[in-house]
Amino acid sequence: MTAGELEAYLHSAIPLSGLMGVRVEACGDGRIVLTAPLSTNHNHLGTAFGGSLATVATLAGYCALWVALGRKDAHVVIRKSSMDYLRPVTGDIRAVCEFPAEATKSAFLDRFEKHGKARMELDVSISENGEQCLRFQGEFVALS
Amino acid sequence: MTAGELEAYLHSAIPLSGLMGVRVEACGDGRIVLTAPLSTNHNHLGTAFGGSLATVATLAGYCALWVALGRKDAHVVIRKSSMDYLRPVTGDIRAVCEFPAEATKSAFLDRFEKHGKARMELDVSISENGEQCLRFQGEFVALS
Repeated sequence: MTAGELEAYLHSAIPLSGLMGVRVEACGDGRIVLTAPLSTNHNHLGTAFGGSLATVATLAGYCALWVALGRKDAHVVIRKSSMDYLRPVTGDIRAVCEFPAEATKSAFLDRFEKHGKARMELDVSISENGEQCLRFQGEFVALS
Repeated sequence: MTAGELEAYLHSAIPLSGLMGVRVEACGDGRIVLTAPLSTNHNHLGTAFGGSLATVATLAGYCALWVALGRKDAHVVIRKSSMDYLRPVTGDIRAVCEFPAEATKSAFLDRFEKHGKARMELDVSISENGEQCLRFQGEFVALS
């Protein structure tokens, strides 16, 4: 799946992603990178709104698992998440989710094939000028 | 502050709240109630998108602390949050944040007066048909 295909899918399936201006900067090479402009995602202080940070991070996790799954007949839901807001984001939002390591991914796909359901924890990071601003940890579940 | 005033403030200060269609159903009587329509906040399964649930819950926490603070020269930021997605939400989103108890609020206001900064933990719940769908716990900080 290309970045453009993933972006079109997100905007059609999850309309909020389009309203927020979420773009898929990268989909592959071991990671998902999503961006969203500050202009539609700022708070009362002119920095990025916490809800927007949470949403872009959640989407990055969804996308990473869905792409790793590689099956359009499966779907992904979020089970739990935690976020540490470490520093304000003063420009556009850029969330990075590294794909799981190959061994983790294989074990996940085996569980999914066997049970029609499998769970994975994913970390997402939003940084600016080399400093981490949001640390996100999510537990996602793939269902057939 | 009335529900209408709070809603107008949210839409102007945090544009995403307007794009999502967030409404203030109640502001007072010990709680904040925010709603958002499923039509702009659904996911690929037609249920409420996890990012929208996270955002409405975060906003409810913000609002509860800001209203409890009662000062327009102060502002509120989120420090950390955790969410358990217990059940899908199949209709409009409705998030409820109970105001802190009077004793907790007094201690918080004392800390704020003394240090120009004070922290509070708040729970937000999103339920449907009497069953809890999202349990949100957030740590918010008020700054002068």
